[in-house]
Amino acid sequence: MDASGKRYWSTSVSEAEAADVFIRGYSLGELIGRLPFSAATFLLLRGKLPTPGESRMMDALLCSVLDYALKKPGTVAARYCVSANPSMVAGLATAVLSVGEYTLAPDQAGRLILESFTDANRAGAVDDAAAGLQIEKLRATGRRVPGFGHPVFRFTDPRAQKLKDIARAEGVWGPLCDWYEALHRAFTTRAKKPEIVINEVGMMAAILAQMGFTPEEMTGIAILSSVPGVIAHVSEEIQGKVRIRTVPDEAVEYDHRRRDLKADMAAGDWQADR
Amino acid sequence: MDASGKRYWSTSVSEAEAADVFIRGYSLGELIGRLPFSAATFLLLRGKLPTPGESRMMDALLCSVLDYALKKPGTVAARYCVSANPSMVAGLATAVLSVGEYTLAPDQAGRLILESFTDANRAGAVDDAAAGLQIEKLRATGRRVPGFGHPVFRFTDPRAQKLKDIARAEGVWGPLCDWYEALHRAFTTRAKKPEIVINEVGMMAAILAQMGFTPEEMTGIAILSSVPGVIAHVSEEIQGKVRIRTVPDEAVEYDHRRRDLKADMAAGDWQADR
Amino acid sequence: MDASGKRYWSTSVSEAEAADVFIRGYSLGELIGRLPFSAATFLLLRGKLPTPGESRMMDALLCSVLDYALKKPGTVAARYCVSANPSMVAGLATAVLSVGEYTLAPDQAGRLILESFTDANRAGAVDDAAAGLQIEKLRATGRRVPGFGHPVFRFTDPRAQKLKDIARAEGVWGPLCDWYEALHRAFTTRAKKPEIVINEVGMMAAILAQMGFTPEEMTGIAILSSVPGVIAHVSEEIQGKVRIRTVPDEAVEYDHRRRDLKADMAAGDWQADR
Amino acid sequence: MDASGKRYWSTSVSEAEAADVFIRGYSLGELIGRLPFSAATFLLLRGKLPTPGESRMMDALLCSVLDYALKKPGTVAARYCVSANPSMVAGLATAVLSVGEYTLAPDQAGRLILESFTDANRAGAVDDAAAGLQIEKLRATGRRVPGFGHPVFRFTDPRAQKLKDIARAEGVWGPLCDWYEALHRAFTTRAKKPEIVINEVGMMAAILAQMGFTPEEMTGIAILSSVPGVIAHVSEEIQGKVRIRTVPDEAVEYDHRRRDLKADMAAGDWQADR
Repeated sequence: MDASGKRYWSTSVSEAEAADVFIRGYSLGELIGRLPFSAATFLLLRGKLPTPGESRMMDALLCSVLDYALKKPGTVAARYCVSANPSMVAGLATAVLSVGEYTLAPDQAGRLILESFTDANRAGAVDDAAAGLQIEKLRATGRRVPGFGHPVFRFTDPRAQKLKDIARAEGVWGPLCDWYEALHRAFTTRAKKPEIVINEVGMMAAILAQMGFTPEEMTGIAILSSVPGVIAHVSEEIQGKVRIRTVPDEAVEYDHRRRDLKADMAAGDWQADR
Repeated sequence: MDASGKRYWSTSVSEAEAADVFIRGYSLGELIGRLPFSAATFLLLRGKLPTPGESRMMDALLCSVLDYALKKPGTVAARYCVSANPSMVAGLATAVLSVGEYTLAPDQAGRLILESFTDANRAGAVDDAAAGLQIEKLRATGRRVPGFGHPVFRFTDPRAQKLKDIARAEGVWGPLCDWYEALHRAFTTRAKKPEIVINEVGMMAAILAQMGFTPEEMTGIAILSSVPGVIAHVSEEIQGKVRIRTVPDEAVEYDHRRRDLKADMAAGDWQADR
Repeated sequence: MDASGKRYWSTSVSEAEAADVFIRGYSLGELIGRLPFSAATFLLLRGKLPTPGESRMMDALLCSVLDYALKKPGTVAARYCVSANPSMVAGLATAVLSVGEYTLAPDQAGRLILESFTDANRAGAVDDAAAGLQIEKLRATGRRVPGFGHPVFRFTDPRAQKLKDIARAEGVWGPLCDWYEALHRAFTTRAKKPEIVINEVGMMAAILAQMGFTPEEMTGIAILSSVPGVIAHVSEEIQGKVRIRTVPDEAVEYDHRRRDLKADMAAGDWQADR
Repeated sequence: MDASGKRYWSTSVSEAEAADVFIRGYSLGELIGRLPFSAATFLLLRGKLPTPGESRMMDALLCSVLDYALKKPGTVAARYCVSANPSMVAGLATAVLSVGEYTLAPDQAGRLILESFTDANRAGAVDDAAAGLQIEKLRATGRRVPGFGHPVFRFTDPRAQKLKDIARAEGVWGPLCDWYEALHRAFTTRAKKPEIVINEVGMMAAILAQMGFTPEEMTGIAILSSVPGVIAHVSEEIQGKVRIRTVPDEAVEYDHRRRDLKADMAAGDWQADR
C-alpha cells in the first residue's frame, strides 16, 4: 500500500483462489462446457455475459479474417523465425509483432467512429448533415478514411455485407453502425465515388464499437482471430524441416562495392589510435 | 523454383485470391456465420472439419484456463510493458513470450503420451503392464511425470474430471486418453501416492493428443486460450493510466556497495589507455 | 525480378560470400580486432567509417543510459518472463518491447530537432528568433517539448553537460546541437522557467541528429545501449532460481464479487441454446 | 518482505538514486566518456572492471559476427515485420526471437566446454586422454560437437584464428581454451577428419567461457553483437517504403483444392446444430 492506502495493483478481470478461478466473478469450473470460447472472450473483455446473439456475432467476427496465406507479413516472418528457432512461442510472438500501421487493423476505423460520433453528438445531432461535416473535416486534413475501399469489390463487399446481416439478425446492429454508414454515404457523395465500399475491416470496427469494445481491444480481437492460422503455419513450417530459410541471392539487389579498411582508417586519422 | 523444380515455399493452410480466401479449401465467405471460432480453429490446425462434438470439446478446452489473475508471470510482464509502451501488440507479444519450461504447458505431457504410446505399441501392447514399464523407465531417469499433481486437489481434480466427462459425452475420448490414465494408475501405485491427481493440464494434453494435435500445437492452443484474458488485462492497464510501473524500493534487496572508478581503472592499467 | 526488372529486395548493409562477409563493403575478417564495437555500430548505420572522435562519442552515448535498476518496466517484465520461460532470447525480446511512448526515448526529441530545423531553414534562418517561433508554435498545440526537464536537476543536468563537453572535444558538436540549445533558450524564456534543463535524453538526441542518425535509428541505439544491462538482469534472475514470479496478494486490489453463471445464463436467454 | 524477512526481489546489477545511477557500484556519471561500451558490457555482466586487454577482446568478439546479409532468418523476419508495422521496437524484438536451436549460437559449445571440463577435472585431469574420453562419450550419443566444421574452410578458419591470436595477445587465453582445442584434436583424430576446423562460433564460446561468462550470457552477447546490423536493416527497410511484403505467388506451392462447406457440414451432422 502506498501513503494513500491504495494498493499498487488493481484488477477486476479475474481472481485466483486455491481451488477455483473466478472470471469476472464467475466460477471457471462452472463455465467450462457451458460457454463457447467466443462468449468467454466477450465476458473477459466486457465484464458481463454476452447474449446468445452477441456470442454468435463474436464467432462471426473472429472468423472474418482467420488467415491470408503467405500474403500477410506476420505469417511469413513467423515461418522465417521457426526455421531458425523451432519454437511455437517465438513464432506466435513474431506474428503478433507484425500487426501495425500498414495492416488493415480495425482500431483506426474504430477510433474514427467513436471520436466523430462523440463530436457530432456534442454538436447536437448524428445525422447525414453531421456526417457530412465530419467527412469534410477529415478530407481537409488529407487523411484517408479507414475502412473504406477494396482492391476488387465495387459498390458492395460481400463479406462486410454478411457481417451486417448477422449483426441485424442477432440484434447487435445499432446507432454507431448507422453512423458509420452515414459517414460512408457522406464520403462517397462528396468524393463522387459511389463504387467505394465499406470493407470488412470497417464493418468489423463499426460492429465492435457498437458492442462496446475500445479501439485497442479491437486490435486485440483481430490478433486473436489470426492466432489459429499462425499456429497452423508454424506447425507446418516446423514439420517441413526447412532449416535456416534465407532470401535466395537472385531476389536481392546487393551492393557489390568493396572498400579497403586499412587505407580508409589511415586516411581517417585512426593510425594514432590503433 | 530451385534446380529440382521445387518451389521454395509450400503450404496447404490457406490460399488467398482477389475476391475470397480458401481456408483448407473452404470459402471464407461461406464459413463466416456458419462455423464457431472453436471449429474454425480445429479446421485450420487439423485440415478437416470437426464434428459438432469435437467443436464443443474445443470450446471446453479453450475455456479450461482463460485467466489466472496476477499470478501468471506473462500477465504481469504484459502490464509492466504497456505501462511504458501503451500498445496492445507489444503487450500481447510480451505475454506470449512468458510461456515456457516452468509454466504448466500441455506439450510436455503431450510428448510423453505420444512417445510412450508409440513405444509401447511397438513393443506389442498398450496395457497396464506396458504402462508400468514406461513409468519405471521414467522414474529411473528422475524426471517428473508431467500433468500429475495439484497444490490443492487430492484423488481427483474436478476441472480435469469435467473435461473427461465432456470428452466422453462428445465421443472424443479414446485409446490415448485411456493410456494416460493407465500411466497415472501405474505411477500412483508405484509411488504409493494414490492421492496424486491427473491435473487439468494433463487431461487437456491427453484429449488434445487423442484429437490429433502435435505437442507444439498444444502449446499454441494453450496460448490461444489465454489471449482474451491478456487483452482484458492490457486494456485495463492502459485505461488505468499508471505510467512507468516499477518495483517499489521496499520490495528490493539492492546491493548498496559504492566503488571508485578512477582508482580502480588506474589499478587496472587503464591509465595508459585513457 | 518483377516486370520492371527490379529485384524484390535491395540492401547495402552487408553481403555474405562463402569465405567472408562484407560490412558496408569492408571485409569482416579485417575489421575484427581493428574497430571497436562502437565504431562498427556507426559504420553499419551510417555506411561509412567514423572518425576516432565519432567512435569515442558513440561509446559515450552508448554508456549514457546502460541500466536503471528495477525502475525500468522492461527490465522487470524481462525478469517476470524468465521466471516462467528461462530463456535469454525471450527475456531480451520482452525488454525490447517495453520501449515506447512513455519511456524517455530520444526519437521524439530527434524528430522535433530535425523537423523544426528544416522548417526554420526553409523560412530563412536558424537563429534565436526562429527558435522562438518554433517554440510558440509548439506551445500553441499544448504538446510538451521532448528532452527538457528532470525530476531532480535544475539549471543544468550534469550528465547532459558531460555529453556536450565530449561532443565539443571530439569535434562532433554542430548546428543541430546549437539549434536545440536555441530551442531550449526560447522555451525557458517564454515559459519563464529558467531552471528547466536539457536532460540527457534531449542532449543524446541533439548529438545523434548532428551525427546523421534518423529518429528511428536513435531508438535503436537507445535499445542497443540497454541490452547489456538486460542480459545481466536476465542472467541474475535465471541463476536466482525464483520460479513463476507473481504479484503478492497484498499488493493487489482484487474485485471480490461472485456471480451465479447458471442464473445469469438463464436470465440471458441462453437456455434455448445450451 | 515475506515471513523470513527476505525481500521479494534482489539485484546487484545497478541501483538508481535521484541524481545518479550506480552500475555494479560505479557512478554512471563518472563512467560516461571513460569506459568504452565493450568494457561497460563486461562490467555489467561480470560485476567487475575488465582489464584493457579484456575490453579489446570484447570488442573483437562483438565484431566477429555483426551481420549476415539476407541469409539470417531473423533479419528477413524483421524486414517483413516493419513492412507492416514500421516500428524499430517491433523489428528488433522480431530479430531477437529468431535466435535458437538451428542458429550458430555459442551457448551450445559453451555448455559442452564447461560441462566436459568440470567432468574431466573431477575425474582427475584435463589432458588429451581426458579429451578423448569426452569425445568418445559424445560420439556414442550420436550428438554433433558444437563449434566444429565450416562449409568452406578446411584445416583452419581464419576468423577463428584471428580471435585466438587476439586472445593470446591480450592475455585472455587460458585452460578452457586449451581444453576446447584438446577436444578438437581428439575429435579430428577419432573421426579421421583432420580438415574439420574449429569455427568462429566455437572459438567465441571457448574465449567467452574462459572470460567467465555463462552459456546464457554467451547467447546474450551474440544477440548484442547482431543488434547494430538489425537496426541498419530495419532503418533501410522503413526508408525503402515497401509496404506489406508478401511471398510472390510463383515461389509458393499452394494447395489448390476446393471443398464444399455446406455439403461437408451436412455430412458431418452439423445440420442439427445450425
